[in-house]
Amino acid sequence: MPPHDTKEVKVGVLGATGTVGQRFILLLSQHPYFVIHALGASSRSAGKRYSQAVTWKQTSPVPAAVRNLVVNECKPEFFKDCGVVFSGLDSDVAGDIESAFRIAELIVFSNAKNYRRDPHVPLIVPLVNSSHFAMVPQQRALHSPPLKNGFILTNANCSTTGVVVPLAALEKAFGPLESCMITTMQAISGAGYPGIPSLDIMDNVVPYISGEEEKIEWETLKILGGIADDGDNGLKAFDMHGKHPLRISASCNRVPVIEGHTECVSVRFARRPPPSPQQVREALAAYTSDAYALGCPSAPRHTIFVHEEADRPQPRLDRDYQMGAGVSVGRVRQCRVLDIKFVVLANNVAIGAATSSILNAELAVLKGYIPSHST
Amino acid sequence: MPPHDTKEVKVGVLGATGTVGQRFILLLSQHPYFVIHALGASSRSAGKRYSQAVTWKQTSPVPAAVRNLVVNECKPEFFKDCGVVFSGLDSDVAGDIESAFRIAELIVFSNAKNYRRDPHVPLIVPLVNSSHFAMVPQQRALHSPPLKNGFILTNANCSTTGVVVPLAALEKAFGPLESCMITTMQAISGAGYPGIPSLDIMDNVVPYISGEEEKIEWETLKILGGIADDGDNGLKAFDMHGKHPLRISASCNRVPVIEGHTECVSVRFARRPPPSPQQVREALAAYTSDAYALGCPSAPRHTIFVHEEADRPQPRLDRDYQMGAGVSVGRVRQCRVLDIKFVVLANNVAIGAATSSILNAELAVLKGYIPSHST
Amino acid sequence: MPPHDTKEVKVGVLGATGTVGQRFILLLSQHPYFVIHALGASSRSAGKRYSQAVTWKQTSPVPAAVRNLVVNECKPEFFKDCGVVFSGLDSDVAGDIESAFRIAELIVFSNAKNYRRDPHVPLIVPLVNSSHFAMVPQQRALHSPPLKNGFILTNANCSTTGVVVPLAALEKAFGPLESCMITTMQAISGAGYPGIPSLDIMDNVVPYISGEEEKIEWETLKILGGIADDGDNGLKAFDMHGKHPLRISASCNRVPVIEGHTECVSVRFARRPPPSPQQVREALAAYTSDAYALGCPSAPRHTIFVHEEADRPQPRLDRDYQMGAGVSVGRVRQCRVLDIKFVVLANNVAIGAATSSILNAELAVLKGYIPSHST
Amino acid sequence: MPPHDTKEVKVGVLGATGTVGQRFILLLSQHPYFVIHALGASSRSAGKRYSQAVTWKQTSPVPAAVRNLVVNECKPEFFKDCGVVFSGLDSDVAGDIESAFRIAELIVFSNAKNYRRDPHVPLIVPLVNSSHFAMVPQQRALHSPPLKNGFILTNANCSTTGVVVPLAALEKAFGPLESCMITTMQAISGAGYPGIPSLDIMDNVVPYISGEEEKIEWETLKILGGIADDGDNGLKAFDMHGKHPLRISASCNRVPVIEGHTECVSVRFARRPPPSPQQVREALAAYTSDAYALGCPSAPRHTIFVHEEADRPQPRLDRDYQMGAGVSVGRVRQCRVLDIKFVVLANNVAIGAATSSILNAELAVLKGYIPSHST
Repeated sequence: MPPHDTKEVKVGVLGATGTVGQRFILLLSQHPYFVIHALGASSRSAGKRYSQAVTWKQTSPVPAAVRNLVVNECKPEFFKDCGVVFSGLDSDVAGDIESAFRIAELIVFSNAKNYRRDPHVPLIVPLVNSSHFAMVPQQRALHSPPLKNGFILTNANCSTTGVVVPLAALEKAFGPLESCMITTMQAISGAGYPGIPSLDIMDNVVPYISGEEEKIEWETLKILGGIADDGDNGLKAFDMHGKHPLRISASCNRVPVIEGHTECVSVRFARRPPPSPQQVREALAAYTSDAYALGCPSAPRHTIFVHEEADRPQPRLDRDYQMGAGVSVGRVRQCRVLDIKFVVLANNVAIGAATSSILNAELAVLKGYIPSHST
Repeated sequence: MPPHDTKEVKVGVLGATGTVGQRFILLLSQHPYFVIHALGASSRSAGKRYSQAVTWKQTSPVPAAVRNLVVNECKPEFFKDCGVVFSGLDSDVAGDIESAFRIAELIVFSNAKNYRRDPHVPLIVPLVNSSHFAMVPQQRALHSPPLKNGFILTNANCSTTGVVVPLAALEKAFGPLESCMITTMQAISGAGYPGIPSLDIMDNVVPYISGEEEKIEWETLKILGGIADDGDNGLKAFDMHGKHPLRISASCNRVPVIEGHTECVSVRFARRPPPSPQQVREALAAYTSDAYALGCPSAPRHTIFVHEEADRPQPRLDRDYQMGAGVSVGRVRQCRVLDIKFVVLANNVAIGAATSSILNAELAVLKGYIPSHST
Repeated sequence: MPPHDTKEVKVGVLGATGTVGQRFILLLSQHPYFVIHALGASSRSAGKRYSQAVTWKQTSPVPAAVRNLVVNECKPEFFKDCGVVFSGLDSDVAGDIESAFRIAELIVFSNAKNYRRDPHVPLIVPLVNSSHFAMVPQQRALHSPPLKNGFILTNANCSTTGVVVPLAALEKAFGPLESCMITTMQAISGAGYPGIPSLDIMDNVVPYISGEEEKIEWETLKILGGIADDGDNGLKAFDMHGKHPLRISASCNRVPVIEGHTECVSVRFARRPPPSPQQVREALAAYTSDAYALGCPSAPRHTIFVHEEADRPQPRLDRDYQMGAGVSVGRVRQCRVLDIKFVVLANNVAIGAATSSILNAELAVLKGYIPSHST
Repeated sequence: MPPHDTKEVKVGVLGATGTVGQRFILLLSQHPYFVIHALGASSRSAGKRYSQAVTWKQTSPVPAAVRNLVVNECKPEFFKDCGVVFSGLDSDVAGDIESAFRIAELIVFSNAKNYRRDPHVPLIVPLVNSSHFAMVPQQRALHSPPLKNGFILTNANCSTTGVVVPLAALEKAFGPLESCMITTMQAISGAGYPGIPSLDIMDNVVPYISGEEEKIEWETLKILGGIADDGDNGLKAFDMHGKHPLRISASCNRVPVIEGHTECVSVRFARRPPPSPQQVREALAAYTSDAYALGCPSAPRHTIFVHEEADRPQPRLDRDYQMGAGVSVGRVRQCRVLDIKFVVLANNVAIGAATSSILNAELAVLKGYIPSHST
């Protein structure tokens, strides 16, 4: 990671008392240049000190720097000094609030699903497709009224994030994929708090997560696809991997694991013959992200850690490696139906959520999308 | 289930103090015509009363009928009055002991893997391929010396058993399958006792079970295949689904569930166009087993229970349905990569182990393979 | 258990779609003489068939007999043919509804806490204090207006129920206790559904259950106490063990167990010297309940099962013994601070809830408190 | 914590591949002045590089500094340059090996139970009784032959360690205790690896841990007691709290928690009237350890963290606070049987094991018991 001398950026956190919000606060309280300046939550929490408003569920105490910050309602007026606003809002309120922040010329990095399918909102997994920042100017220009600074940028669903990193590495090394089967075993923390009742998941597997399979199947295409000219109007569009149609089939399961989504993945390459397991292992290990290359302080040194042991990765042992910012892969081997199969582990509350948003914001700083930090 | 007036059959249990042995004893103690007559275990247990020899791990007490039975070593001389011998032996000793019992003209129904790949030993999932009993005469005849009564018959690995039932139902209704992807989430009881250390599996997934993927991929072909003429020598051979090659790819995981293996399955049919999800649902629900049709008392009324709710089957809620003798399927839907995908649940300690052996023995009685019961 | 030829009693279930209500329905659907006649739930469920109204969370299917029963609102008019009404209502609504049923001359057996502290409502653990039925006439007489048939009778909190059975056995054998320390390890099912979020209890212990310690400390005194003359007014009152003051100190913990409350108990007897551990073991094993002696069909043959093994009882292995209707005790040994200590296990959803209510209703039938069944 | 400029001390680790050994290695690899110099394990591991010999079960990778260290057998000759030897050996071999090391003039800090009851071996919980180092000279002098440097010093059992810290704080503030009831809920990691089979503990409580209750009841007296003159022979002896007899009764349970022992404790003071809950809270929070006062780098800033929330401490949320080096207490309240009750949480693999040994070694350095570091 190259050195940096970035100047301080004031940031806000929306949904600050929720599960994702608490992670934002933990991570941001140790960030080299993002400084928590404003917290937003529901009107029930507004006016209280953070330590009183929150039901803190993290394994380290509330950071001293936010303990006494007063929580505000999620209105742009309270965040106008923030160079970046992180949103950990629930999807039932995220749509309107994030839109209001954008109109107010604020820059929103959102974990919510609301704008992921918007044709002008980048859906960026920071270890994969930072090139999609290129859509930001068009988002601003086509907004009514046109915006100078404000934009919304989303990161992916937690289970999408895990799988898309090795898929991107494979496409980079071996060309387009043709099909991909994914079976997930997802942690309970992916459902937020209170989330899954213990009576539903102890000594059990629930073979269904509402909307999750569709998210993986759709988001993966947007992320792995490029940006193409959209006809003759001079506009750009996400191409949804359209040049090389990619069929994705996901099966999602909830398992009694606290943190870390495990996914069994099998892929078929367009290229014949396909690469060998050893070639795949090497390509995965060699993959580097823009985020790390550009010097994002939260980027993991090893984008993908490739395990050699037969029984890894495992969520309990591997989810905290590199503070959960990278992705672990193991059991790379031949598949008798498609070409190659392997196991992916990604920390759903780190790279699968808050860490991705923060990395996207770091990329925005480096790429000059945060006004006061542009060169 | 038709009525029956089968006369009593004395049975023995090998490995009686182990996990599978305990299940045999629980089930057999309530059986309408099998009567526990002899128990075999290691020399460490031999000479003790069963209740003293066993570390009982079941949720109901040791059945009164076996509490005071004296445990013997696993030698044929102690079992010579047994019409049927059930083996719950570990694979490290099962090979030699089961062979010795066969030479002594005893009939062995084994849960161990040792003889599953033997070209003359049927590998029978009783809800699927009872026709493979037809190999028994050849097994006896080719034995050296030839046997009059003795034979070994195995049931399948617990994770194979679950998946092969719906696959058989689909092939029966829609013709041969072309490929099949299976991802399992297997219960800890599948590993016996002491089995998985709690430190390895609590709050965790272990994405590897030694030898398991190979078992599913190989055993399924033997079970779903037929029996063909083996050249000009007048002999028969298992055809391993050879007329319609079937590619199977399995990924096996251990999850923190006590009982019940959940499997995500996706299949491609040879037939074009493939059946619709609704047709598949109907075919699965309509499938009936020989075991039930013939009147086996342990056969489930519903071979396959097809769930309509989006989030079923679940191991904790569905594993005990029909005393774990049937198989549950849910989430039948289209697959974007193959044709149809669904979720299977099978109770690994019931239909996946002891219940299958007992059903096979019931079939043997009905089909006349137990000498004193032949007509 | 003596034979019985009790005639059929129509029963209703309030809170029929909830956790306790589902247990009532499972148990009552197999009852020899209680027949489910009416189901009550919130207005959201009213008018629906039971199978559509309920989110069924039991491990066996919805009993056929209630599947198509139409759910009503919890109003007496819909239950007027019921000889007995079981209430599994939440305490936030139980107070008003149960009162309305009583005024309508209905007989209510309640699991809710609302009337447990009422000076005229018996709080009966059926394996302990069936003598408290004697308060029913006074409850009817003092009601305004006086009632002919209607009354409310409650059973105890689930953790109280477990401990009070062996305490009653000890007092019966050895005279009054002087003090008692109780530390509970309670199952998640004790909190109902959705109850405890999985994020709060997986890989965790929560050393606090709101109101639980007070319930144990207070209810135990009411249950173990007698009924005394209340001054000169000819009335009776519960004496709260007042003749021999008993100090009880409870510490309640939630642990990651699905069903079965485990409690570590230590007692000091008034009598000096105290009984030996062996005497205590014998007294516990010899204890019999009125419920069993009188022939209640749901009464367990062994009121208290005394384990000899060092590591029992355990919730997973012992909670289903006798269908959860009895209590298990183990590790009876000397205590260096008080006199004797031991471990109790009681199934919180069986004897700790629905089974107790049903047993109380069976006692009411036998004792002549259900009008049409009085002699 | 005062600054320090201690010079480097070479250390060895016995049982380096085991559960406790792995923790020693993790902690020592980040230590300011202890430097891992030699590793000992069984002959099966000897000769291998550490990374090959170990089945690493920690959540962070094998530290680079030991990855390639060659493992030796546990013989003093391989450790002769070590100023300190840490022993994580199992008790079945610890007795002989630790004795051999002492004879070889090595200084052993042991986690094993073998020498805890030795009348000349200090049993030191570093947050409590560092004064017991005073027994070291006598241990050396009475050894046959007398030793110049060598000695053995043990730390306490993990469940003893948790409870003895608040008990010491209470005795320091309010004078001697008279009796103490302890009920533990202990994590599976306390049993080492492979330790508890998952089939024994998932969805379960095991109300028994072999030898554990006796350890708590005995060790607590040795730790809380002083050192007295042993008759007229000029020798000293541990007084086992003999001036003020203290009755302790422990009940030990295993629960499905990975790390962190929770204990419900109730105490009676000799002093009448006893302190109030608020006084107890203040005394616990104010308690400081010699280890911290003297500047041990591994000592926690807060010896005892006193929680105000009703439902804390909880093992999952609180076990990693201060890297598990302190003890958490909550729910301080009146007890109806004794005086005051509360809940203690201690990290069994940190302060309950390796961290205590390391703190004891740090104390030894500061107190001048490590020869080359004496002043």
